[in-house]
Amino acid sequence: MPDNGRMDPEEFRSAGHELVDWIADYRMKVGSLPVRPVVAPGDVLRALPATPPVAADALSDIVADLDSIIVPAITHTQHPRNFAWFPANASLSSVLGDLAAAGLGVLGLSWQSAPALTELEQAVCDWMRQLAGLSDAWSGTILDGASTACLVALLVARERATSSSLRRGGLQQEASPLTVYCSREAHSSVAKAALLAGYGSDNLRLVDAPPPGYEMNPSALAAAMAADVEQGRRPAAVVATAGTTGTTAFDPIRDIAEIAGRHGAYLHVDAAMGGTALLLEERRELLEGVEEADSVCWNPHKWMGMVLETSLYYVRDPAELVGVMATDPSYLRSSVDGAVVQYRDWGIPLGRRFRALKVWFQLRLDGPAAIRARLRRDLANASRLASLVGAHPDWRVLAPVRLQTVCVRHEPEGLGADALDAHTLAWCEAVNATGRAHLTPAKLEGRWMVRISVGAEPTEWDDLEELWTLMREAASERS
Amino acid sequence: MPDNGRMDPEEFRSAGHELVDWIADYRMKVGSLPVRPVVAPGDVLRALPATPPVAADALSDIVADLDSIIVPAITHTQHPRNFAWFPANASLSSVLGDLAAAGLGVLGLSWQSAPALTELEQAVCDWMRQLAGLSDAWSGTILDGASTACLVALLVARERATSSSLRRGGLQQEASPLTVYCSREAHSSVAKAALLAGYGSDNLRLVDAPPPGYEMNPSALAAAMAADVEQGRRPAAVVATAGTTGTTAFDPIRDIAEIAGRHGAYLHVDAAMGGTALLLEERRELLEGVEEADSVCWNPHKWMGMVLETSLYYVRDPAELVGVMATDPSYLRSSVDGAVVQYRDWGIPLGRRFRALKVWFQLRLDGPAAIRARLRRDLANASRLASLVGAHPDWRVLAPVRLQTVCVRHEPEGLGADALDAHTLAWCEAVNATGRAHLTPAKLEGRWMVRISVGAEPTEWDDLEELWTLMREAASERS
Repeated sequence: MPDNGRMDPEEFRSAGHELVDWIADYRMKVGSLPVRPVVAPGDVLRALPATPPVAADALSDIVADLDSIIVPAITHTQHPRNFAWFPANASLSSVLGDLAAAGLGVLGLSWQSAPALTELEQAVCDWMRQLAGLSDAWSGTILDGASTACLVALLVARERATSSSLRRGGLQQEASPLTVYCSREAHSSVAKAALLAGYGSDNLRLVDAPPPGYEMNPSALAAAMAADVEQGRRPAAVVATAGTTGTTAFDPIRDIAEIAGRHGAYLHVDAAMGGTALLLEERRELLEGVEEADSVCWNPHKWMGMVLETSLYYVRDPAELVGVMATDPSYLRSSVDGAVVQYRDWGIPLGRRFRALKVWFQLRLDGPAAIRARLRRDLANASRLASLVGAHPDWRVLAPVRLQTVCVRHEPEGLGADALDAHTLAWCEAVNATGRAHLTPAKLEGRWMVRISVGAEPTEWDDLEELWTLMREAASERS
Repeated sequence: MPDNGRMDPEEFRSAGHELVDWIADYRMKVGSLPVRPVVAPGDVLRALPATPPVAADALSDIVADLDSIIVPAITHTQHPRNFAWFPANASLSSVLGDLAAAGLGVLGLSWQSAPALTELEQAVCDWMRQLAGLSDAWSGTILDGASTACLVALLVARERATSSSLRRGGLQQEASPLTVYCSREAHSSVAKAALLAGYGSDNLRLVDAPPPGYEMNPSALAAAMAADVEQGRRPAAVVATAGTTGTTAFDPIRDIAEIAGRHGAYLHVDAAMGGTALLLEERRELLEGVEEADSVCWNPHKWMGMVLETSLYYVRDPAELVGVMATDPSYLRSSVDGAVVQYRDWGIPLGRRFRALKVWFQLRLDGPAAIRARLRRDLANASRLASLVGAHPDWRVLAPVRLQTVCVRHEPEGLGADALDAHTLAWCEAVNATGRAHLTPAKLEGRWMVRISVGAEPTEWDDLEELWTLMREAASERS
């Protein structure tokens, strides 16, 4: 390395080729690795020096450590038999877009600092809107994730309900409490956002979402809102979920919008997972009514395959969002203010990466048709797996397969509820311990079940057949 | 592209080499490009298709568009004569770390999902702590930026002051208002964070920070806090700035900590810019007293050179932070909870990228000694420039050069205040219009000045000499 303290472009060229090759090799072999990490707490820390480096290393030293320390200690999200949590595809096309962003090293502070960063973000957000069949009443930006999007939405809702209390005495001077509503199947980030936005847990209503579909019950929502109003509280926001974490349930957005509208409450749709379904015309009905919402969050960094952190946030009224988020210091003023979009005023951070490049690269290199074909493959595979599982006498599919997630339980005769819970966790762990597939358990109606989240990019039907064999072996050995 | 909708590893290998070469070429030639974008609002949008792609493109098509559409439309942050805003170096070593993160495509949801992501983050945060000479009482994480860090700090402060109102009725049920204090030279993100956290603008105190140093005046802080207490308000938090955006002033942290302590107020240190000074033993006195704070934010993605978004956030009491940020849904529970760090509970987002790799790569590939040498070069260059400017009869250096930022004004005789403002903006714009250097104006004491923020990785003394020539030419033509 040169003594001016930086890797120069020629060194980068050679090290970059080496690293690209390493990534290509990793992706080729990932299916042969144990899906789940095989380390105990502290193992990685103990493998690393306790003190910072002194001399400069070569890339080959780091690559050796990637192989020996890092790779054995991660869940291989890109593995064809990773069925844990949600799909989190990092398509190689979007990896290139992300690399271009890092390589250009552009700092997005304002339109002025990087017009292309701003306007490409406008363009790809609009392309994604068109691909999703959303109307042109929506304006979009790219946030880091759905937790942040929900926090932003609940902050805007708070300010709407209090006529901009942030420009006065803040939330602390509000006399009658504001309330927030979501399904009890909503993601934990909704409750977190409500608490961080200052509403307080006493004012968060987890609305019933009963079996068999686990969607929010609109009557229960209406009743909860009416009861709050009666007691002097003010319904400020409803969060509807399109694709819950547990069972991929879709709350009935149209009904919810109608009820929220009666109270002037803000409606945010958390379509972090389910938004990708909008790409498929035949599944758009799952989000029927979404046009009535105030904001929608959709994470292309999940099933669709864009590198983290690519979370689309669409609003119908950018002026309302900007009214809450804007600051205007002198060092950011420019002669074009007003004529351009300033994305710093659409979210929490000031400086931003060139996130739009990931979207641009994936849409152009893979193409929407191929992406849609892959999504349809996953839906067909999930549905086929659900049929196999459902046809087996000892197995149950616990929720409608609305998308690519299959929720199952092995229920051999004669097990009480607690024993069944133990059995569920045991066979799931046994499958995971093989290293050949990875599943995550979750609670449904207070009892453990196992989620099979289909949708890693390389997952084909063969992988699901192998999983089903592993599941039956693991479950039968234990019953 | 294959019809399964993804770029395969062999296609990635070849396209990756092409893109790495393009980045290396870009970095080699960046110094010959106009620093500032040469486009008008809407130019980039008009150059892009209004509708999404239909067929899949080749990487070479995208690279051609990068050259023709994107590169002319960004401020070249990595340009040797970019003196705008703050340095935002994307060192090529950290670009590689960021590429490794994208290529692995790991999803950090919990320790369990990616032990290496969690433990490498623990390790590099601790290495950085050691390099900065901070005591081992600090525990760190990597957030996206200083705006988020400040919001997190003010949320924790709010909950400390209200004994966890988020677990009850929220901020809206607090009777006596909470107040927040920062210097009037603090970054706009402090006010934004206070407003988003619900304190309200009426309860934000911008404390005097007078010339010549523009540091917060501790007596004014003490007086403001005492007046608030007298009027029944409760001082909840103070934000001290280490390296203000305007003049790189350092608030006197030790005095501020003592005053905050009297009122039990939380103390956050925004060392987004100034934190890097801690790497240099001879500059650590600038942050004297930092050990008394509750939290510190430091952005290695600025001067130090790590790719965005690398914002270190250190706290003295992780349990207090986790108490505000934690959620515990069943699908994230694991048998090792309690034995490990769960970074999802240290900030707002749930899922995280493998951010620690950027830090690991830069520290190992460049090495701390070379990084420190570069920082010292920048300090010497800034100081030398300040001497030249200060020695010229018509030019003034407006603030002490504490770090790498030189604040200047050309003050020819006979100009009134408004004419001087116009002259300042005019010569700054004239320098920028040459495309050979980029400066940003800012207000100081209500009047325009020009900031010269030294510290792009490739900036050498020659570049500053060229800038000084451009400045004198531009200013003399106009006076």
